[in-house]
Amino acid sequence: MRHFCVNIEYDGTDFHGFQSQPGRRNVQDEVERCLFKLTRQQFRIQGAGRTDTGVHALGQVISFKAHTRIPVDCMVPAINSELPRDIRAVAARETDDSFNARFSARSRSYIYVILNRPAPSAIFGRYAWHVPEPLDLQAMQKGADYLIGHNDFRAWSKNIAEQRTTVRHLHRIAIRRVNSFVLIRIDANAFLHGMVRNIVGTLEQVASGKRAPEEIAEITCSLQRSMAGPSAPARGLCLVRVRYD
Amino acid sequence: MRHFCVNIEYDGTDFHGFQSQPGRRNVQDEVERCLFKLTRQQFRIQGAGRTDTGVHALGQVISFKAHTRIPVDCMVPAINSELPRDIRAVAARETDDSFNARFSARSRSYIYVILNRPAPSAIFGRYAWHVPEPLDLQAMQKGADYLIGHNDFRAWSKNIAEQRTTVRHLHRIAIRRVNSFVLIRIDANAFLHGMVRNIVGTLEQVASGKRAPEEIAEITCSLQRSMAGPSAPARGLCLVRVRYD
Repeated sequence: MRHFCVNIEYDGTDFHGFQSQPGRRNVQDEVERCLFKLTRQQFRIQGAGRTDTGVHALGQVISFKAHTRIPVDCMVPAINSELPRDIRAVAARETDDSFNARFSARSRSYIYVILNRPAPSAIFGRYAWHVPEPLDLQAMQKGADYLIGHNDFRAWSKNIAEQRTTVRHLHRIAIRRVNSFVLIRIDANAFLHGMVRNIVGTLEQVASGKRAPEEIAEITCSLQRSMAGPSAPARGLCLVRVRYD
Repeated sequence: MRHFCVNIEYDGTDFHGFQSQPGRRNVQDEVERCLFKLTRQQFRIQGAGRTDTGVHALGQVISFKAHTRIPVDCMVPAINSELPRDIRAVAARETDDSFNARFSARSRSYIYVILNRPAPSAIFGRYAWHVPEPLDLQAMQKGADYLIGHNDFRAWSKNIAEQRTTVRHLHRIAIRRVNSFVLIRIDANAFLHGMVRNIVGTLEQVASGKRAPEEIAEITCSLQRSMAGPSAPARGLCLVRVRYD
């Protein structure tokens, strides 16, 4: 039995998220179908992050074990020959049997893209949230900084019933403007369900003057989802990196 | 009669280029149809650059004159309400009657995007040429520098019969790497038909060691299209800016 770790990209537009579910096109089922064609073995893959419907990935990582003679150097082209065009394998390596893309991950990084100008875009519409009003990035960053550290992020999650603990360690939120775009990069050891989009949707309210930056701290302390703002749309979100030891 | 200048973006993937032609979806016809709905007048627009099938634009400029009471500040949302999603108006202004988007233009800038890594991309496939082999950008830039200046670019054009003169002034070719991408920006007073893609396709041969940089100068001097390399694919090309006095 050999163990593999593969970096994949996908355009989330036409997927009902990463995770396998019956009757709805998802990344996991597509990748498992591809690996079945290559290895004639049916197995489950592990993904580092369970991205939601419409969320993209440039740095998703999956792991699986299989009996196969495919040389590791041929793994990327072999997988790409069977995958649909909106998923691509980018890199592959063999690991030892202790590696698991999800449980071995030390941290995940997401980038959220806001198109911040009056007019919408013909090209970036699939990959950005269009916010026409001016945004105050200094206020946004000030609000964001209240989230850094080891916190109970229960108020920022969509679905807490299924979670064992809602404590996460948020390492960094870096916000910058590049021409008409506002890029929000968030690094944490792990994320709760819907957490990045809740945070971005609420920070947008801070940046557009609807909330004070200090309210971000109050929302966290409240532990109440109802205190936070709306979720930012999925299309602006992208899983860009997963780190391992 | 009022005169307008409008900046537009489009995703060229599903268009047979900018220019009007019967029976094939093109940008000009879509924009003219939209303006007819808004003004109930049938007229021709002028575009600054006649982009080919599959070529994108972030900075196309069009001009037209019309009898309309639409305030100029409302022009962008009005146009966008009638345009298909893969064309967007970005800015609009009123001009005097001497302005013509094509003939008043001082220079045009294109960016060509190469995705230069072994694996193709799930997200950038529509907007980049995938070149898996390593590229020597220093050699590429050296070759490119032979093109700068006031030259007869006949050898770099697809279709010279229709051109009056094939002399153009090429101001600058700037090549840089950003992660896995190679960005080639080309500024000139104007371009011949197919010129940017011919240049990029031939520079790729220089960067991958198939040609010496000096051959770029020889191709120009030959005035023979057959001397140049193949055209780079349309999907990597984008008209990014048109300058006026």
